[in-house]
Amino acid sequence: MSIEHRLTELGITLPSPPNPVATYVPFVQVGDLLFISGMVPSRDGRVVFRGKVGREISKEQAYEAAKLSLLNALVTIRRAASSLDRVQRIVRMTGYVASGEGFVEQPFVINGASDLLVALFGEAGRHARVAVGVAELPMGVPVELELIVQLVSGVRLETQR
Amino acid sequence: MSIEHRLTELGITLPSPPNPVATYVPFVQVGDLLFISGMVPSRDGRVVFRGKVGREISKEQAYEAAKLSLLNALVTIRRAASSLDRVQRIVRMTGYVASGEGFVEQPFVINGASDLLVALFGEAGRHARVAVGVAELPMGVPVELELIVQLVSGVRLETQR
Amino acid sequence: MSIEHRLTELGITLPSPPNPVATYVPFVQVGDLLFISGMVPSRDGRVVFRGKVGREISKEQAYEAAKLSLLNALVTIRRAASSLDRVQRIVRMTGYVASGEGFVEQPFVINGASDLLVALFGEAGRHARVAVGVAELPMGVPVELELIVQLVSGVRLETQR
Repeated sequence: MSIEHRLTELGITLPSPPNPVATYVPFVQVGDLLFISGMVPSRDGRVVFRGKVGREISKEQAYEAAKLSLLNALVTIRRAASSLDRVQRIVRMTGYVASGEGFVEQPFVINGASDLLVALFGEAGRHARVAVGVAELPMGVPVELELIVQLVSGVRLETQR
Repeated sequence: MSIEHRLTELGITLPSPPNPVATYVPFVQVGDLLFISGMVPSRDGRVVFRGKVGREISKEQAYEAAKLSLLNALVTIRRAASSLDRVQRIVRMTGYVASGEGFVEQPFVINGASDLLVALFGEAGRHARVAVGVAELPMGVPVELELIVQLVSGVRLETQR
Repeated sequence: MSIEHRLTELGITLPSPPNPVATYVPFVQVGDLLFISGMVPSRDGRVVFRGKVGREISKEQAYEAAKLSLLNALVTIRRAASSLDRVQRIVRMTGYVASGEGFVEQPFVINGASDLLVALFGEAGRHARVAVGVAELPMGVPVELELIVQLVSGVRLETQR
């Protein structure tokens, strides 16, 4: 089954592609590697989750925030490669969690994104990962994700905005 | 116009190349990718900006610190590739901002580097980006930058110090 | 002399390979690049160091924690490539240090890993590096390392866990 199909089957509707808030672009391709900019839990340009995990928001809410951040990454990958079916492998994801004092369950939070990657891409979704707890994140979001993705050879994006 | 020319036109003089403060090197090339070590706002080995953003220093000062950190990255790229004209594309930049409690304007700060990259390289300077707020940075600097750069194919550095 | 030999000569015994605490894998290879997941100071699944550097634990202890984290990275590289002799180059290491207020000697801490890389691999161990001070790390560890490694061309891992 195609990944685009599987997305529908999982009942997931991707948000509209997020636009960078500054002088950079959402992705850059070099060879078959796609570098995705930091993705946050926003929907249609509006931040949905705010606060530090373990303080203003719970780890369960942050899990959902990681999931939403990943949806923004997915729609960016689709925009870069035309289709999620052109993903060869999710290579690496770094998850930054804005953490209240003493909160050390960053892996639980970032699983919100990792679990969905595996549900969607299967073996190709199993990635190397780094999860850290940072002091603050842009716009007060609790989670930010950065991804490196390998595309099927020969895929070359047309425009890069 | 060449990038080296454009640099002059923008009135920018690069500092002397920074030397790592420890057992590592300022850059490593693999294939056509150049990985640049963390760059901080120093000039000729002396740290110019210190403190956390939103507390000891303002976001405008931090914007300047990001710009100076980028100059150190640029002189490192020039040292690696002989000339900035051998840059094919700025691939990705991660900007770490030492942030005082509640400071969430990391994108504004890192624009100090992003804006200069675009002014200098044009489309080739538009990069994927991650901006996060960290607790502390080496030597008390407010900003640290990490870059991945694609060089024109066939460029191979001679020595790597 | 082979790297595996050198490891013995340095009196180093690698721990058993760490298993990810979540839905991801310890490494992903793409081309000749190996991306290693975040490595922490654990031995046989048990965290050995806990606390923030400059507060609960000293920079000297954290140096040892960085060294132990690197041992986990090394055993992961060996598992990926069958032997450490198949390492072409250590490309980049990012060191995250859980830092107490005002602790800015992250470079000293991460040298615990960098020094060992150079002792073990010589020139091939000299890497690009980023060291930052974060708010919190998973399970309360003081150090987490992320690495990108170039393997000798033609090395292709068999299984990926």
